Amino acid sequence: MTERLTGYKGKVLRLLEEDEKLEIGDIIRVTRNGEIFEGSLMPRYELADDEHIVVKLKNGYNIGIRITSNTKLEKIGVGAKPAFTPPPLPKEKQGLPIVSIISTGGTIASRVDYRTGAVRPALSASDLYSVVPELSDTANVRTEILFSILSENIHPFHWSELAKKVAEAIDDNVNGVVICHGTDTMAYTSAALSFALQNLPIPVILVGSQRSSDRPSSDATLNLMNAVNAAAKAPVAEVMIGMHEDMQDSATILHRGTKVRKCHTSRRDAFKSINSTPLARVTGEKISMLRDDYSKRDMKKKILLKPDFEEKVALTKFYPGFDPEIINWYVKKGFRGLILEGTGLGHVRNNLFPSVKNAVAQGLIVGMTSQCIWGRINMNVYDTGVDLQEIGVIPLGDMLPETALVKMMWVFGQTKDLDEAKRLLLLNIAEEFSSRTIS
Amino acid sequence: MTERLTGYKGKVLRLLEEDEKLEIGDIIRVTRNGEIFEGSLMPRYELADDEHIVVKLKNGYNIGIRITSNTKLEKIGVGAKPAFTPPPLPKEKQGLPIVSIISTGGTIASRVDYRTGAVRPALSASDLYSVVPELSDTANVRTEILFSILSENIHPFHWSELAKKVAEAIDDNVNGVVICHGTDTMAYTSAALSFALQNLPIPVILVGSQRSSDRPSSDATLNLMNAVNAAAKAPVAEVMIGMHEDMQDSATILHRGTKVRKCHTSRRDAFKSINSTPLARVTGEKISMLRDDYSKRDMKKKILLKPDFEEKVALTKFYPGFDPEIINWYVKKGFRGLILEGTGLGHVRNNLFPSVKNAVAQGLIVGMTSQCIWGRINMNVYDTGVDLQEIGVIPLGDMLPETALVKMMWVFGQTKDLDEAKRLLLLNIAEEFSSRTIS
Repeated sequence: MTERLTGYKGKVLRLLEEDEKLEIGDIIRVTRNGEIFEGSLMPRYELADDEHIVVKLKNGYNIGIRITSNTKLEKIGVGAKPAFTPPPLPKEKQGLPIVSIISTGGTIASRVDYRTGAVRPALSASDLYSVVPELSDTANVRTEILFSILSENIHPFHWSELAKKVAEAIDDNVNGVVICHGTDTMAYTSAALSFALQNLPIPVILVGSQRSSDRPSSDATLNLMNAVNAAAKAPVAEVMIGMHEDMQDSATILHRGTKVRKCHTSRRDAFKSINSTPLARVTGEKISMLRDDYSKRDMKKKILLKPDFEEKVALTKFYPGFDPEIINWYVKKGFRGLILEGTGLGHVRNNLFPSVKNAVAQGLIVGMTSQCIWGRINMNVYDTGVDLQEIGVIPLGDMLPETALVKMMWVFGQTKDLDEAKRLLLLNIAEEFSSRTIS
Repeated sequence: MTERLTGYKGKVLRLLEEDEKLEIGDIIRVTRNGEIFEGSLMPRYELADDEHIVVKLKNGYNIGIRITSNTKLEKIGVGAKPAFTPPPLPKEKQGLPIVSIISTGGTIASRVDYRTGAVRPALSASDLYSVVPELSDTANVRTEILFSILSENIHPFHWSELAKKVAEAIDDNVNGVVICHGTDTMAYTSAALSFALQNLPIPVILVGSQRSSDRPSSDATLNLMNAVNAAAKAPVAEVMIGMHEDMQDSATILHRGTKVRKCHTSRRDAFKSINSTPLARVTGEKISMLRDDYSKRDMKKKILLKPDFEEKVALTKFYPGFDPEIINWYVKKGFRGLILEGTGLGHVRNNLFPSVKNAVAQGLIVGMTSQCIWGRINMNVYDTGVDLQEIGVIPLGDMLPETALVKMMWVFGQTKDLDEAKRLLLLNIAEEFSSRTIS
């Protein structure tokens, strides 16, 4: 790896080195099988192979171009070189709340050098203040990079680490915690923290970005600023996700950690509260609570840290043609529980009944949720639901399938006793069950 | 089984028979472990066991009450007895369009005797006319009961049977086809018919009901009437789903068969067009087309019937903690293809890469969709997507995961050749890919 060609290796590096002066940031033209790509050469980071060149196109997207034997490359312009000197850290202001910002990676945890388009992690406090100078009026920020991974690579053991890190920050008497996180699995993590961090004294807000901050439509700055504002001052002490309310760049919505889902691949307002109204709207300094049944901020509260998760739990979506043998496989592999994502009010085809019955007989807990996503399970209306309950399947009300999966992983992290596990599964711990479904 | 206690058997029947005069429809009180249930005794139909009494509560819901040794039962009121004599069939009116109504089961295919609350299949033409007399002004209706099953029990072989039955009706020169279907898997069936019935000359409309017609809020009548109207007269010749537009009892929306999903467990407007605007709004006689890029009705068109589906195709939803061995299991079991329901723009954790690579090497086709549901896959933005494409995963644009599953089953029903299968998978056959995602 060389400085001027950060992250490139192997045959790709050799190709790039053919031009002795080529550097990250230069404008290049890549020709391959008649296709032409032009843009600035980007550095490569984690997971980099030796097969691709990454180029930022004029439309703002980065693409990876695979290098083949007939790929040609020419430099057609000199790019500005990456250079970034953060301004000096502002002095801590007395009387301002302290907010801990923990980074796990994802788009929001990066910043872009505007001259080169290069993306780099930016989570020192001084970097953050330079990107969002308004922060220094709101809070004294402490920053820490816990992980630096894309959120699709987040695993249950990361949830445990993260929960412990938040608990440490709380022990240090911070007034709020903000977690930068990729959006892909953010709602799984928010559910996990909701169960792992009980009796919170302060808000814990996960924040992400759907567009990296080098694109004109980025939501990174607004979301981060509003999340820090809310962490510093909001009266609610729960685990929440803070993301754009709509396509405008005006407000951030705080969703309850167990009742939220990423519902669009690319829109800035991808996150929606499901079967629940959101907790609050944040517009700069203004924090409007949208419901009043929330846990109150109270620095005297003593956090209960329960960070353990059991991985031998699966989520299985039913569909016509579903092979019931899959359920037998989970039983054979020693899984402790299954969340079924059934149809409608909580149904699966009757040819699954023997496998489900066997799973229950072997000591697995089988819970039912709905692939409809919205609405509530009701297994008393049709014969299928009645039969499934008879077999031992547990209806999980209006809990999201993803939240139900995470909860069952958490439940078996707390106990191996079946009765206690069932009791915990049905106990409303973090408002994962709504008393009334908002439709 | 006795007439006065239709469907009951075994120990439940013996308990009911203790009162010599107790009949279906009577008001009873059931006491079990301190719980009391009151309502009218319902008959039992398919799948009935000998363990439950079904009672219609005052709130309109039917519940199944399991009979235990300490369950007590008393008759507290005499119900009206079931009796229903349909009026004579109206004469076929010359000049009216002919609509074929094919029933597969589900809530809509039942009618209720209003005096007893008993649900019974009602799909003779005369029954239908008696329930919805307006039908005789709109169309000459031909009815047929193809299946009588809850839609969670629909399997790919039912799709084939149904497709053939629709093709037969079309050969008989009907002007439109209406299919009564349970709502649970209706969107899977609509996708299946969209691929199996190509070059349609007339509309094919699946219609269902979220509330049985014995409940004041039932949507059965409006949906059926509007579906028959549209089948008779709408200018569009595609496979569609016709369900309530909103919570009002005013309009039915026609959704394109490949772009629709059941998005609520119980609401009447549960069905939503995804990444697409619906095709039409039907309010009685008035049919308003909502887009103009549809296949036109033309009785001269010759239908292409392609009814075969391959069951060895699976849909797998990714989540944190997902065990990659599941993918190996599908390979070992001889599956031909997998649809991954990944996160965000089309991602899974990097520990799945070896299993996915192996699946592709073993000749499976692996397609990527998003659990976000809304939006479009883009596997060129992040390393994970680039790497997965490199391994051989095929991005499936804005196709719904459920539609992608059904399409891959259909594709392998047409060909065993891998290249041809990939070509068909990516060919836009029934508008399953939108040229532009409506967000």
